[in-house]
Amino acid sequence: MTPRRSSPSGRPTITDVAALAGVSPGAVSKTFNGTGSISPATGERIREAARKLNWTPSASAVALRRARSQTVGLVLNRQSQSSSLSTTTADLITGLESVFAEHEYSLLLHLFTRDQGEEAALYRRLADSRRVDGVVLTDSTIGDQRYGLMRDLGMPAVLVGTPWGDDPIPHLPTEGDGGLGAVAEHLLGLGHRRIAYIGGPEDRVQAGIRRQAFQGALGAAGITAHPVVATRSYSADESAELTRTVLDATPRPTAIVYGNDIMAIAGMTIAREAGLRVPEDISIVGYDGSSIARWTQPQLATVQRNVVQRGRVAAAILLRQLGETVEGSFDLAHPHLVEGRSTGPAPS
Amino acid sequence: MTPRRSSPSGRPTITDVAALAGVSPGAVSKTFNGTGSISPATGERIREAARKLNWTPSASAVALRRARSQTVGLVLNRQSQSSSLSTTTADLITGLESVFAEHEYSLLLHLFTRDQGEEAALYRRLADSRRVDGVVLTDSTIGDQRYGLMRDLGMPAVLVGTPWGDDPIPHLPTEGDGGLGAVAEHLLGLGHRRIAYIGGPEDRVQAGIRRQAFQGALGAAGITAHPVVATRSYSADESAELTRTVLDATPRPTAIVYGNDIMAIAGMTIAREAGLRVPEDISIVGYDGSSIARWTQPQLATVQRNVVQRGRVAAAILLRQLGETVEGSFDLAHPHLVEGRSTGPAPS
Repeated sequence: MTPRRSSPSGRPTITDVAALAGVSPGAVSKTFNGTGSISPATGERIREAARKLNWTPSASAVALRRARSQTVGLVLNRQSQSSSLSTTTADLITGLESVFAEHEYSLLLHLFTRDQGEEAALYRRLADSRRVDGVVLTDSTIGDQRYGLMRDLGMPAVLVGTPWGDDPIPHLPTEGDGGLGAVAEHLLGLGHRRIAYIGGPEDRVQAGIRRQAFQGALGAAGITAHPVVATRSYSADESAELTRTVLDATPRPTAIVYGNDIMAIAGMTIAREAGLRVPEDISIVGYDGSSIARWTQPQLATVQRNVVQRGRVAAAILLRQLGETVEGSFDLAHPHLVEGRSTGPAPS
Repeated sequence: MTPRRSSPSGRPTITDVAALAGVSPGAVSKTFNGTGSISPATGERIREAARKLNWTPSASAVALRRARSQTVGLVLNRQSQSSSLSTTTADLITGLESVFAEHEYSLLLHLFTRDQGEEAALYRRLADSRRVDGVVLTDSTIGDQRYGLMRDLGMPAVLVGTPWGDDPIPHLPTEGDGGLGAVAEHLLGLGHRRIAYIGGPEDRVQAGIRRQAFQGALGAAGITAHPVVATRSYSADESAELTRTVLDATPRPTAIVYGNDIMAIAGMTIAREAGLRVPEDISIVGYDGSSIARWTQPQLATVQRNVVQRGRVAAAILLRQLGETVEGSFDLAHPHLVEGRSTGPAPS
């Protein structure tokens, strides 16, 4: 066996993968190029080794195998046939596209309604047709199958979010506690003790992280968030329905924290319809810091994220995988609380 | 000269263009394929004839010239580097993509900040690189150069909007008076006589059509909208600033009609900050019927458009140009007033 050559950058090489799987580099190459005959068991062992090392075929190897398309794919999950892209998604697209365009890459957009089989077929089609050089993944879910699929397809990818199960797929830096610690502290400081949390869908990794951060911060002060409501979507309609239920409880919460701004705006309207004043009778906090939050009455307290910048950073991570030189600053500040006027002292 | 063969569908043919320009069909072909030598004057005459007949190289001819990419381009105008896609644009993308995906077409997205030279270069690049089979144009402007550019490039196109100067570029059916007649009637019926209009940018064809429809409907009742304010953008920030000025006038208007919902929401907040009650002291009307309008307090009166459906219809028009068979219903209802609770009787 030849001595292992390690990459000068310290990144894993095809030789590392071959060594870990106990095969020749040629076998690794055959597996990922789909050429030659490799037994299913060996192929699986090779893919497993690649996964452990987070190795994907290098951009130059990919270029040899297929003509570069200078195009990147973004596959988005629509919650239903009728629902539209959210403002957060619009911000993400804006950020992604701005960096891709600087490097003369195009952005190919696909939407699909939730169906993992359909989504996997779409990625295979994109890979087979060589339409894209890489993909941007969003909406990381529990048990997400896409990370492994990208490796199987030899498709460079970046995840805008936090991978499930510490998968080594390239992704954005974490958002810490997502600003939820500051939200908890703010509400506790105003004397709130009965605090409800209407978060996002529990199959989303990010929704779970935020909920836990919020519960943890309240728990450190000896308070239990109640109720904690998981949703099916991030929609205003569902939030309105859940808010009605939450407000019917006895004793009623004095504050509600929502998974996004449009949910909080709907919640604010439902609270008013129930005869409650915001913030005198109930405090409301949104999430995302979307531009509409500045114009609600009262101005919505929210957690400001810079989603456009998240798109820019994700684009830079992917382009670097593709061998492009991406210059400029790609810092990502943690989300922070913007206090607004929709929170106030807990009613006595 | 051979007798003219007319297309069985009655659509103009290359022979018609050649006859009108007084040249051979081969010369038309050379002009649009950029092959052979055609004098600039003759080329101009041929393009002029094609324009008059709204003839573009047929999809099959285009297919011969370039491999089909099964991809359609959408080039969007961002108002500034920092601004994001609007919710209306997100709806449009949703509608377009749903029909393109059904026909296994991908949607290629480009954003750019307003610069016609930059935009023209982008279209040329898309055409030269054969990345797209056709394009979707939005934001029709006065003196728009893109319609002619598409013909010069032999690029099938659809305009989501109304073309400037009755250009024959394929486009959506008109929206009639855009629902502004009903808005005028509604406000007049409530006794309003001092009505302000804070519309959109005056270089947009659609903004001008709507303003004229509104002024016309008020004029028929002997009322003059005042002031009528053209904007640089459709942004909340600019609307807030203009609303302050409009509310400072003596006598103050008793109603303001806005170019979109987010502008109206910002206006509502500014009115309240000025100590005015909505709708007791001032009536507010938005435009677009975006989902956020349902959740404002009071619920915003707005003109409901089905932008997702507009995207679907535009996609169908373009796909048919590309020779695809598109089945299903592609009706487009005119925009209609949704009354909400942000309008009321004019204060005495």
